[in-house]
Amino acid sequence: MTENKKSIGKENGGASKTRVRVESFSISLDGYGAGSNQSIDNPLGIGGEALHNWFLPTRTFRTMHRSFDPRAGQEDGTTGLDDDFAQRGFKDIGAWIIGRNMFGPIRGPWPDMNWKGWWGANPPYHVPVYVLTHHARPPLEMEGGTTFYFITEGIHDALAKAREAANGKDIRIGGGANIIQQYLREGLIDELHIAIAPTILGEGERLFDGVNLRQSGYECVRFEASEMATHIIFQRSEA
Amino acid sequence: MTENKKSIGKENGGASKTRVRVESFSISLDGYGAGSNQSIDNPLGIGGEALHNWFLPTRTFRTMHRSFDPRAGQEDGTTGLDDDFAQRGFKDIGAWIIGRNMFGPIRGPWPDMNWKGWWGANPPYHVPVYVLTHHARPPLEMEGGTTFYFITEGIHDALAKAREAANGKDIRIGGGANIIQQYLREGLIDELHIAIAPTILGEGERLFDGVNLRQSGYECVRFEASEMATHIIFQRSEA
Repeated sequence: MTENKKSIGKENGGASKTRVRVESFSISLDGYGAGSNQSIDNPLGIGGEALHNWFLPTRTFRTMHRSFDPRAGQEDGTTGLDDDFAQRGFKDIGAWIIGRNMFGPIRGPWPDMNWKGWWGANPPYHVPVYVLTHHARPPLEMEGGTTFYFITEGIHDALAKAREAANGKDIRIGGGANIIQQYLREGLIDELHIAIAPTILGEGERLFDGVNLRQSGYECVRFEASEMATHIIFQRSEA
Repeated sequence: MTENKKSIGKENGGASKTRVRVESFSISLDGYGAGSNQSIDNPLGIGGEALHNWFLPTRTFRTMHRSFDPRAGQEDGTTGLDDDFAQRGFKDIGAWIIGRNMFGPIRGPWPDMNWKGWWGANPPYHVPVYVLTHHARPPLEMEGGTTFYFITEGIHDALAKAREAANGKDIRIGGGANIIQQYLREGLIDELHIAIAPTILGEGERLFDGVNLRQSGYECVRFEASEMATHIIFQRSEA
């Protein structure tokens, strides 16, 4: 009965070696990480934007937004719990791994090399980003330190390359749900920050489908809510 | 983007006719309403007890506990958000509907009539309780106003009988997950209070499997967290 209470607040302090982290990954109350019918006009699927209502007003996002989108407003953004979590997602990150849909809406072979990602000329990564895809493409160097590398050899290859590039810093797995599940099933993620948003998606990609977090040794070490989201940190227990 | 913010706090005031409500139904961070391997020694399944860590210390539960279990301690219990939600679950309830596992651990035909429920001589319902089962059994009158009626004709029959018995008050659907899903799929539930507990179950019965809350017209009208749980109220929008 007290097991759970004890575990809250057990979050690890600074680690000395590269950790693989999921950060600011939002799910709906019914467990979905994106809505259904994702498309170029609706990259987060039907209703999926509401997942990020806690993130978009934060100072972290507002600052980031101005740096990659000249149309972004000048508001400072909010501080507090939501911003603390937004901020930690970018701390000590030496490389990212993302699924192809987080790079862009194109499926199948690349028709040409014109699409350079959702994020404009100066994407908010500023480190090497490994994009999992079935379709090879030369690396794409952007402004501000971001280079996209297209990995066709699977999640282990991406992780090995990201680890080398991170050079002692951490690796952030961006998503989507399917990519996170693949790494979870292989026991390769050290820590996850999940935000539960007060919205219902009804259908889509469930983050925790096909994974058994308990069996994989994860526990909830932090649980704290704002009005916009319940923030959770999962860590693997040191078995 | 604001759709969701607007909806928070839209909770309906007092209603004038019988509503069908789910109350204090706890799910894990990964969406399960009970752990795996439920048994007589472990009625909530492996790890399932942690789902109720927010409820058990409340004044509402402590008071209830003393009335049905002479071994219960004398502590007053906590007040505050968790207790507010525990309390509202018993307000204006004229009848309950529960699955057979909430009555007892026996599966298949009744071996005899000796099992009188998990709850002792004076169960905490104090109103008629309709138990969904495939195996007929005569009604069982307990102390304190609780009578168990065993319904073999399915969820619609149970609801009709509960509605008559409730006599203008509300009907509470107790669970488990499977019973709630059946009523949700038929659009028969007006309001759900769900508590998300900071625990991981890994496997078991997912509350929202096989239901599309969004399509069924539900929205989140309240979202508020204590240290022990995030409380959510879903209501069907008046279409």
